[in-house]
Amino acid sequence: MTAGPVKFKARLSIEQVEEGDDLAPKFDDRGLITVVTTDATSGELLMQGTMNSEALALTIRTGEAHYFSRSRQALWRKGATSGFVQKVRELLVDDDQDCIWLRVDVAGGASCHVGYRSCFYRRVPIGSEGDITLEWTDTKKVFDPVAVYGDAPNPTKL
Amino acid sequence: MTAGPVKFKARLSIEQVEEGDDLAPKFDDRGLITVVTTDATSGELLMQGTMNSEALALTIRTGEAHYFSRSRQALWRKGATSGFVQKVRELLVDDDQDCIWLRVDVAGGASCHVGYRSCFYRRVPIGSEGDITLEWTDTKKVFDPVAVYGDAPNPTKL
Repeated sequence: MTAGPVKFKARLSIEQVEEGDDLAPKFDDRGLITVVTTDATSGELLMQGTMNSEALALTIRTGEAHYFSRSRQALWRKGATSGFVQKVRELLVDDDQDCIWLRVDVAGGASCHVGYRSCFYRRVPIGSEGDITLEWTDTKKVFDPVAVYGDAPNPTKL
Repeated sequence: MTAGPVKFKARLSIEQVEEGDDLAPKFDDRGLITVVTTDATSGELLMQGTMNSEALALTIRTGEAHYFSRSRQALWRKGATSGFVQKVRELLVDDDQDCIWLRVDVAGGASCHVGYRSCFYRRVPIGSEGDITLEWTDTKKVFDPVAVYGDAPNPTKL
């Protein structure tokens, strides 16, 4: 007997969702759920993305992070192009089950398409007024994005 | 001479957004940006929320986390009701500037309306198939939500 594909439960009550042991994720009107991905060792925030139900089910079954790319409108196995696969050490869900937290180990150490270890490499000084000047928290790229991605379209949208 | 209110820059080019020192956040079609909030000491993910431009500007100026509550459709100074104010130790922005990372110190130690320290207190076992049973990672509530919030509407939506 096999358990078969990952099943999500219907959302029936606030008590079930907040205090129960059913996995009953809330996908939004586009069928997506927010994902927060941190480095399992350092605790650093690596990236924030989205999953559809297929990406979430695949991540749970395989232990490798899958996302839904909004810029490409396609299922996205993280690292398929770059090799920077994210191995999921722990997968958590929040109180109202509209957010997933992945604690991962990253092969090669990079999670950002710009080439940095983390997507978060600039800081806004607290107490700023008027025009803001961002401060760099990381200036060392882990890889060369042109060498890795070639002329693939940049996912950043203006 | 005073610098006046926090100013956000227009998004003019991918290079400016990804590699420049302008703060040019991307608010979505509802005027919101995703926020990830971690404990500045432990690195634990506390909550995921959203800000509108007013909430982001107030957070930068005051150093206290402000959000936009989607369930209440209102500006929300975190801790206004519960007292669990979040003091922002560091505020970062991601590569394409559509996500904010707050590293905070929390007065009283709680960030979850259900009463837990973090909103993420349940784990999905990796490798699961079929029906999923969530595992608790935290079972000790820091406060009693009924005592703190009384009969205010629960923000969780089914």
